[in-house]
Amino acid sequence: MERTLIKDLKNHVGTEVLINGVVNVARHQGKMAFFDFRDRSSLIQGVVFGKPEVLEVAKDIGAEYAVAVKGIVNKRPEKMVNATAPNGDIELEITGIEILNPSEAMPFDMSADFSLDVLLDNRPLTLRRERERAIFKIQHTIITAYREFLVSEGFTEFQAPKLVGGDAEGGAEVFKVEYFDGKSAYLATSPQLYKQMMVGVFERVFTAGSMFRAEKSATTRHMSEIAMLDLEMGFIKDHTDVIALVTKLMRFITEEINKKCGAELSLLEMPPALAPETFPVMTLREAQELIKQETGADKTAEPDLEPEDERFLCEYANKHWQSDFVFVTHFPTSKRPFYTHIDPEKPEFTRSFDLLFRGLEMCSGGQRVHNYAELIERIKSKGLDPDKFEFYLQAFKYGIPPHGGIGMGLERLTMKYSGVKNVKEASLFPRDMNRIDLLLSEGESSEAK
Amino acid sequence: MERTLIKDLKNHVGTEVLINGVVNVARHQGKMAFFDFRDRSSLIQGVVFGKPEVLEVAKDIGAEYAVAVKGIVNKRPEKMVNATAPNGDIELEITGIEILNPSEAMPFDMSADFSLDVLLDNRPLTLRRERERAIFKIQHTIITAYREFLVSEGFTEFQAPKLVGGDAEGGAEVFKVEYFDGKSAYLATSPQLYKQMMVGVFERVFTAGSMFRAEKSATTRHMSEIAMLDLEMGFIKDHTDVIALVTKLMRFITEEINKKCGAELSLLEMPPALAPETFPVMTLREAQELIKQETGADKTAEPDLEPEDERFLCEYANKHWQSDFVFVTHFPTSKRPFYTHIDPEKPEFTRSFDLLFRGLEMCSGGQRVHNYAELIERIKSKGLDPDKFEFYLQAFKYGIPPHGGIGMGLERLTMKYSGVKNVKEASLFPRDMNRIDLLLSEGESSEAK
Repeated sequence: MERTLIKDLKNHVGTEVLINGVVNVARHQGKMAFFDFRDRSSLIQGVVFGKPEVLEVAKDIGAEYAVAVKGIVNKRPEKMVNATAPNGDIELEITGIEILNPSEAMPFDMSADFSLDVLLDNRPLTLRRERERAIFKIQHTIITAYREFLVSEGFTEFQAPKLVGGDAEGGAEVFKVEYFDGKSAYLATSPQLYKQMMVGVFERVFTAGSMFRAEKSATTRHMSEIAMLDLEMGFIKDHTDVIALVTKLMRFITEEINKKCGAELSLLEMPPALAPETFPVMTLREAQELIKQETGADKTAEPDLEPEDERFLCEYANKHWQSDFVFVTHFPTSKRPFYTHIDPEKPEFTRSFDLLFRGLEMCSGGQRVHNYAELIERIKSKGLDPDKFEFYLQAFKYGIPPHGGIGMGLERLTMKYSGVKNVKEASLFPRDMNRIDLLLSEGESSEAK
Repeated sequence: MERTLIKDLKNHVGTEVLINGVVNVARHQGKMAFFDFRDRSSLIQGVVFGKPEVLEVAKDIGAEYAVAVKGIVNKRPEKMVNATAPNGDIELEITGIEILNPSEAMPFDMSADFSLDVLLDNRPLTLRRERERAIFKIQHTIITAYREFLVSEGFTEFQAPKLVGGDAEGGAEVFKVEYFDGKSAYLATSPQLYKQMMVGVFERVFTAGSMFRAEKSATTRHMSEIAMLDLEMGFIKDHTDVIALVTKLMRFITEEINKKCGAELSLLEMPPALAPETFPVMTLREAQELIKQETGADKTAEPDLEPEDERFLCEYANKHWQSDFVFVTHFPTSKRPFYTHIDPEKPEFTRSFDLLFRGLEMCSGGQRVHNYAELIERIKSKGLDPDKFEFYLQAFKYGIPPHGGIGMGLERLTMKYSGVKNVKEASLFPRDMNRIDLLLSEGESSEAK
């Protein structure tokens, strides 16, 4: 008999089917056994009753057993219908059950409220929970929507290298790799330089992949390895062209999540994100004036926003402008990297922006320097050595179009769409100062837990 | 005036338009100037004639200048039509031209036949050539088709970590990373263990991203960093379910390339790949028998295929079975990793396979061990320590479904679909023993070339 996916069982009422699945919950009651089975598509309840030979097999089956189950799909009696559960109006009258792979008894109650360490130490198990599957279904939807939208806008995907030859860009802390013959390589902190080179090749490009930060910080917002979503586009007039594209991108991602992850948002008790046709845009100085006016805190001379400012601006935008997104533009030239385009009308500020979403900086971007001579000057002005950028500079010596773009963190997006409090819950296998799968301080032996 | 993409100019004959583009070729002839402009969508020829004020600007414009051009779209006279060129039946009568970013004179003839080192040392420029853009348009099409097909088959994308805690798997050479506080981490050589854990979460999963091999080999097939396409699927009966899915996947990728990259295949002089409804499948021993019978070379006791065997089998399959793809199954247990499922009927062989494509191994896969006790035995039998696999083994202790999958290299696929001879030409920024962007032995200074 061919396998039927659980989501399709409702089309087979009254007939015998074969499902493959994993036991989500098992309840044994003497001559009866009740199971909830899950497969990749949905959940279904199954019952063994009045079949001693089936019960003989079923009685040993507990949670996480992988099984093949034959049964008749029955409508539930009216009073047994569970309107809120998937397949709550049908159940499987089990006629046969085969164990494909057994499971030991679970080491903890899977529905418990775990500490972060227990959650992460037992990731292969805890990821199987409905809550975790909901978070990473949303993550899958974000990255799929990101690519689909950009391809529809004429972007070409490219593979950015993760091994780089030097820490040319400076700034962020960089991991060192033992390369061949005593030479060193480094792990990329951003695909910035490569995506700019690629503007000369395909005009509009995007990439998505791991980036690495050796920051010694243990916050709820930082990890050693993150998945970055980067795009770069040529022939812009200034950063506002990028803001317009990013607005459409975030609206598309939001729509896709609302369309495809309704059940997941309900489970996580998250409302759909507010993504109006245009998002509020203000300069850093305007944002600081607003903060001063509304809270009394005078930060109008600060070079950047603090986390509490980001939270305030998002709360304000949600309340007054019905937007969970806010663009803040024109960060000081002194605080932005060398490739950031200076605003010719206010040279102490740049044509840069951050996008805030639900209280957190989600993405940084802006127009870039495209003029070769200016770029060399900017590199020098940051105390960096243009000779180390020889490969990158080829793209500018030979006429790259005016361009700009953004980079944003997939885990931060996932965190804010799914409502988890720590970005590590939005990474399948988060790495930080103290953890690579298991806690580093406790080593990798089987005694680690 | 709003920008028109070059591919849409044919719909604007007789009207004035604005294009943004880069000068592909410039030819100055006294009172006339001819240009080929390219943008992300296509190419067009433009002419300046009888407009002294435009010629004054145009005369300084050479290859790779980024420009905004106004002009009237004209039908070409019948005898000037170039049927083989894009937009060969129209041209732009230039009425105005603005330089957005100038270019220095190109350092070499872009249409030359470069050595591999020149090609790679000057990647930001050489990637702009039609040939290179064709190769990476094909690469974009492969990875996009790969994901689209798998999502349509119920797979969920996941992000596999690149930083790993140990060289647990052994085998391939591994790069070491200086992590925090004197601890070491390593760069992942494969997402194998993670994708198996993820079968317990989403049943069908895929991932695509960089993987790292510290192999000291300088062949036309190897690099230090590659993009791997990995998938894993639960509830299979054996490896033949994986072969069936991979056949459909490769047929879909081939169709998408034929549909979307017709011009690129023509330019590269590549015929469409032969991908029949089922691909030839033979065991390693059957393949060796065929080789013996056809060539006289007796390799029937060898544990693996050599490169010349792969080439022979593909030539044979192309000629006799009209297929550019061949599956070879049942590699010896001694030669495959611990997680490979043993064939219960012939325990010295595994339920494993390689997929050969146009003379080269493209992908390895098979059914995996899913039984916890058996997996521990297999780890030990390879001389490895099960304690080092504690995190991974959680997935098996608690009932993972029978499963299997594959990993394949994006650059090798790109190489064989586009017909380039060295896999480094199928990587935008290839890394090997001697090169990270520029040749390592020559350092990173501006004197490197």
